Amino acid sequence: MTSSIHDVYAVILAGGSGVRFWPLSRESYPKQMLQIVGEDTLLRQTIKRIKGFVPPKNIWIVTTEDKAQDIRFHIDPLGSIAKEIQFIREPIGRNTAPAIGLAAIYLYRLSPESVMIVMPSDHAIPERRKFLSDLRLAIRGAKEGHLITFGIRPTRPETGYGYIKVNRSSKKGVQGFSRVECFVEKPDLETAKAYLSDGSYFWNSGIFVWKTSKILSEIKKHLPPLFKTLKEIRGLIFQSGNPDQHNKLNKQSDEVNDLNDPNVLNRFKDLYSSLENVSIDHGIMERSRNTLMVPATFRWSDLGSWTALEEMVTKSPEGNILRGNVVDIESQDSTIFAGGRLIATIGLKDMVVVDTPDATLVTPKKRAQEVRKIVEVLRRSGREEHLIHRAVERPWGSYTVLEKGEGYKIKRVVLKPKARLSLQLHNRRSEHWVVIAGTAEVTKADQTYMVQTNESTYIPQYTKHRLENPLDVPLQVIEIQNGEYLEEDDIERFDDDYGR
Amino acid sequence: MTSSIHDVYAVILAGGSGVRFWPLSRESYPKQMLQIVGEDTLLRQTIKRIKGFVPPKNIWIVTTEDKAQDIRFHIDPLGSIAKEIQFIREPIGRNTAPAIGLAAIYLYRLSPESVMIVMPSDHAIPERRKFLSDLRLAIRGAKEGHLITFGIRPTRPETGYGYIKVNRSSKKGVQGFSRVECFVEKPDLETAKAYLSDGSYFWNSGIFVWKTSKILSEIKKHLPPLFKTLKEIRGLIFQSGNPDQHNKLNKQSDEVNDLNDPNVLNRFKDLYSSLENVSIDHGIMERSRNTLMVPATFRWSDLGSWTALEEMVTKSPEGNILRGNVVDIESQDSTIFAGGRLIATIGLKDMVVVDTPDATLVTPKKRAQEVRKIVEVLRRSGREEHLIHRAVERPWGSYTVLEKGEGYKIKRVVLKPKARLSLQLHNRRSEHWVVIAGTAEVTKADQTYMVQTNESTYIPQYTKHRLENPLDVPLQVIEIQNGEYLEEDDIERFDDDYGR
Repeated sequence: MTSSIHDVYAVILAGGSGVRFWPLSRESYPKQMLQIVGEDTLLRQTIKRIKGFVPPKNIWIVTTEDKAQDIRFHIDPLGSIAKEIQFIREPIGRNTAPAIGLAAIYLYRLSPESVMIVMPSDHAIPERRKFLSDLRLAIRGAKEGHLITFGIRPTRPETGYGYIKVNRSSKKGVQGFSRVECFVEKPDLETAKAYLSDGSYFWNSGIFVWKTSKILSEIKKHLPPLFKTLKEIRGLIFQSGNPDQHNKLNKQSDEVNDLNDPNVLNRFKDLYSSLENVSIDHGIMERSRNTLMVPATFRWSDLGSWTALEEMVTKSPEGNILRGNVVDIESQDSTIFAGGRLIATIGLKDMVVVDTPDATLVTPKKRAQEVRKIVEVLRRSGREEHLIHRAVERPWGSYTVLEKGEGYKIKRVVLKPKARLSLQLHNRRSEHWVVIAGTAEVTKADQTYMVQTNESTYIPQYTKHRLENPLDVPLQVIEIQNGEYLEEDDIERFDDDYGR
Repeated sequence: MTSSIHDVYAVILAGGSGVRFWPLSRESYPKQMLQIVGEDTLLRQTIKRIKGFVPPKNIWIVTTEDKAQDIRFHIDPLGSIAKEIQFIREPIGRNTAPAIGLAAIYLYRLSPESVMIVMPSDHAIPERRKFLSDLRLAIRGAKEGHLITFGIRPTRPETGYGYIKVNRSSKKGVQGFSRVECFVEKPDLETAKAYLSDGSYFWNSGIFVWKTSKILSEIKKHLPPLFKTLKEIRGLIFQSGNPDQHNKLNKQSDEVNDLNDPNVLNRFKDLYSSLENVSIDHGIMERSRNTLMVPATFRWSDLGSWTALEEMVTKSPEGNILRGNVVDIESQDSTIFAGGRLIATIGLKDMVVVDTPDATLVTPKKRAQEVRKIVEVLRRSGREEHLIHRAVERPWGSYTVLEKGEGYKIKRVVLKPKARLSLQLHNRRSEHWVVIAGTAEVTKADQTYMVQTNESTYIPQYTKHRLENPLDVPLQVIEIQNGEYLEEDDIERFDDDYGR
């Protein structure tokens, strides 16, 4: 197996918005960027799980254009490997079948007979060794031309998952695999109980392994409109007007489809946007006849909702999951996620409470899935609690909006050691900076000077400026913005370490 | 009646801490200072209810030493009447019997045959006209030597109140009154249901009317140790070393017991602290044989807990009370108090959710009374969420702590028009001020200068300074404190408009 591992690619799907983990997740901060179980965020755990198994440059992340930059910054803490990871940018989100198809046409160009491991970026799999062992088996099956899926043996009558029914009596299976009889939709509770006791039903994990050539031929067979458009996209990118593209793939620059020609880019957007929103499960797996299932030996959760956490997190003797600043009196079977603010709970039963600096969710567990309705209300009413957090990560560090009011906005800005913001200018606001920790190097028009802890400086509007941390310790600055328009888009960038 | 109204005194008991309305109430911001029902805070509503019925100088507020200043500032918005209201300061809280006894010895000195109306400061009585009408009747009974209490006809089998049982058949009653047979403790649900259908049980409202001489003779009879100590206190204040005291009472300065002599003050504290913690209900009313009840014609609630709100607030068709920034989906019979932060709720049933900037409470209604246990936990663990709010009212305006961290604290400070802080100095911190609205007049050591909106200034430690609003519009300043010790007690005051 190791002899051919250079022809195995891990395609991580990271385009999801994770509405169901609101208010912890936001549109600009989706579930894969959360650290809700385990020692790191779900996306970084996903990368760590596969790294060392395939070469870093064989790890491809498929995500949408609007999320790509944030996700690249997000994986930065993984170190040098982060720079080798490839990105495939979808112009907009179009579900898993188009995302996988897009990755496949790039991969096919590199190596038609390559093996493609498709992995969600926001699931929890705490047992890496078992996962990799099952994966080796799956790759063997994929190389023999099968579509391989991973089934999870049910532990409860779950109604929130699709199921895979296997044929236990079939002798046509390959050793270690089960032959898939069919994929079944989310059942009602009665049916789910029957599945649980039957023993031939498994949860569909959403992890797949196949040869690139194989998935493309399956797309051609079962989703011909998608195949046709993928072919057009392939033509657009690899033949017309983009002679560099193939070289680029060989060079393994960090953006597989960094399309510079605006005409090509627009055409690509139009084509991709025209695709039907269809999942790989529904579009291919439910229709294909050539599917084997690996009965997973690893523990797994799709963390599909606040209640799914329970599978992966150790509960208190009372059945609670309490995190952060919680003072609880006699609650049972409840999940309470707090941050720094105090959440005080008395006698809750089967409840979910999730607190963030600007929004708190309170709901019975059995209705936690309906959090998407809250997000919908916020979206419709033009608010922003569904969109962004008060604390925002940036490649140079982070900022937290402490308060916004008529004519002012207050941020705490933290710069990593040696990091600096872009050289920039605001047309509609001025800024006061007070250094509360560390030392700032400030560029203001033609001057550059140091501002120490407990010193301040002032940046008038229309003035080019830059904030830099020259030291090896974090720099913290309180920024008080004044002006009638205080949104993030009032920024002209002249020089930026992060290519923005 | 009006001919003798100058000998009628309203004694408002405002020493309570209102733990049961946490997190909206805090030790430093008790329930009587909250605006939870009606157009104003409960204490100010209480004063407005009685003002015009008795002269302003006959309104006496009994509260504890540590709350007196805050309560005086709190009633300031009532205008000129606020300056005439008298304060009786208890050295520490010792329940209602000592508080009423203390007021009585002062009143007795002024006028033994005066009538004393005892009113809690934190109840809701929306119907002022009916209340005053009932009160006129009660005063008539009090003048005839009775102890008068107000009974509220029950509307539900409440287990949280004490009851008054009246003798409906007795002919010995005075017209309009019911003769009290006995006071009964909080019943269990079964008993409460029986009381409700019986018709001779009333809720004990905690409002009493009697002659000053009468309540003192009842204290002498039923609580002799209290009477003995009150006599000592009376001797201490009026005879030994305080020749001014009697004049002071005649002068009606704004502090009835502003004891200047430290020896007298300490002795007073010792005596008062030695008193038994006993309520007037338990100590006198349950034992006295001379009690008449006015069946109240007004609506009333003691607002004894979050659930008691329901009696006084109009509910939505779904039975909810929603206030502030709430997005709710299909909750029923729930009380959700939000402020500016978003509280999102789905499918709650019989729940209470109360949000404040630094703490959120979530509990089923039936356990809302147990919020005191949360306060107890906070107190024991040396935290401060039970003690103070992030937003603090001051006579000159208010401040809000936006963030506290290692070595810094950020406040937004709002000064009323023409108001100013004290001339002060900090030994352990420096302060940056950025004006975000209005104009500040800043005194710093020997200089005085103006700081306009979007300008800043710096106050080093050890430097005398003052912040003043010279204009007729509010002034808003962001204050960034730097230092290793950032508590409120690092302040030396040199001149203060508010006598602190």
